[in-house]
Amino acid sequence: MIAVKVSEKSIRRLSHYARCLRLAKRNGESIMTSQQMALNCGISSAAVRRDLSIYGEFGKQGSGYNVDNLLVNIERILGTNDPPAVIIVGAGSIGCALINSGLEGTGGYTYNSIFDNDPAKTGKDCAGRKIRSIEDVAGFLKDHKEVIAVIAVTTGSGQIALDKLVKAGCKAILSFTLEPLRAPKDVEIKYVEVSTELDVLTHSMRRKERVD
Amino acid sequence: MIAVKVSEKSIRRLSHYARCLRLAKRNGESIMTSQQMALNCGISSAAVRRDLSIYGEFGKQGSGYNVDNLLVNIERILGTNDPPAVIIVGAGSIGCALINSGLEGTGGYTYNSIFDNDPAKTGKDCAGRKIRSIEDVAGFLKDHKEVIAVIAVTTGSGQIALDKLVKAGCKAILSFTLEPLRAPKDVEIKYVEVSTELDVLTHSMRRKERVD
Repeated sequence: MIAVKVSEKSIRRLSHYARCLRLAKRNGESIMTSQQMALNCGISSAAVRRDLSIYGEFGKQGSGYNVDNLLVNIERILGTNDPPAVIIVGAGSIGCALINSGLEGTGGYTYNSIFDNDPAKTGKDCAGRKIRSIEDVAGFLKDHKEVIAVIAVTTGSGQIALDKLVKAGCKAILSFTLEPLRAPKDVEIKYVEVSTELDVLTHSMRRKERVD
Repeated sequence: MIAVKVSEKSIRRLSHYARCLRLAKRNGESIMTSQQMALNCGISSAAVRRDLSIYGEFGKQGSGYNVDNLLVNIERILGTNDPPAVIIVGAGSIGCALINSGLEGTGGYTYNSIFDNDPAKTGKDCAGRKIRSIEDVAGFLKDHKEVIAVIAVTTGSGQIALDKLVKAGCKAILSFTLEPLRAPKDVEIKYVEVSTELDVLTHSMRRKERVD
């Protein structure tokens, strides 16, 4: 396969295709047309064909895609054929709810461990998982080369958590805190920001009202 | 103020500026330079100046922005000066964790109500809030003209929840379910997708390893 620089938008679409294919596989489907992929993913079928053609010949015109093959190929591009470990930092309500919901149906990820900086929480249960001290995070990162850390601490403590993770060698962060985090350039940070999504929806609703 | 069509990316940045300004206000700061805004928001100061210049004369070169004025203006653009009601559909672990975390420090939003389709849950407590039957959602939407609904049901039940909301007149949805939802064109849907964020981070981590 030729290495292609892929935009983040394309990666997000590939992630959606993978999810659709996993679902199709679970439902016993072995072939999927680009129209079905488009419908199931909420993306136009032209975009599906264009995206998938970038990565080589995955399907033949008119005969649909082989679900197993396409999924294997997409997971290889994403890197989820061998998924990194995922840990949670912050055993509050969001952290425990994430563990409780799990990551079934995703690219093979599991929440490996949950850490908190409150000594009173160490050893306690969080959705069936034992909470570990944040001081153990360095050891965890030594044992697991590739780790994505989900920061789910109280807003205001995000930077402290991030600094500890970065010092321990973590290169990938998903933050639920409502604060921008500062990290070295080789650390990738993504944010889940409910309040920003609400702002986008509010703005869109108001703009439509003004137009109507 | 001149009405300008603003891209979603700009709206997201405005949402971040608003958050920084609220924090500055809480800390008793009345003036903020574009450099401070940039640092606090993790955005370049050139981008801050460009963004804010689009919406008119908010600050004078060299003297910084008046925190109160700028916040009022940004909230007017976003529409959060008069925030819509926010409800949660699905009183599972994520729904209750959201209520528990609250929306403090955001554009004045509050979670007004939480609904579930399980009759056994009706009337029960969820992070201090009484769970209401999903059948009450139509009444809620009649009483509140503008509502953002957060869908936090189990994956697989998202479309049923959305159909009920759309039928009741809801035009803005934030979904935590791992499935693409279908809605009429005048309904705006945003997604919080932890698994896609993990895929983006995994891909980025693997690409860097290949380059190194």
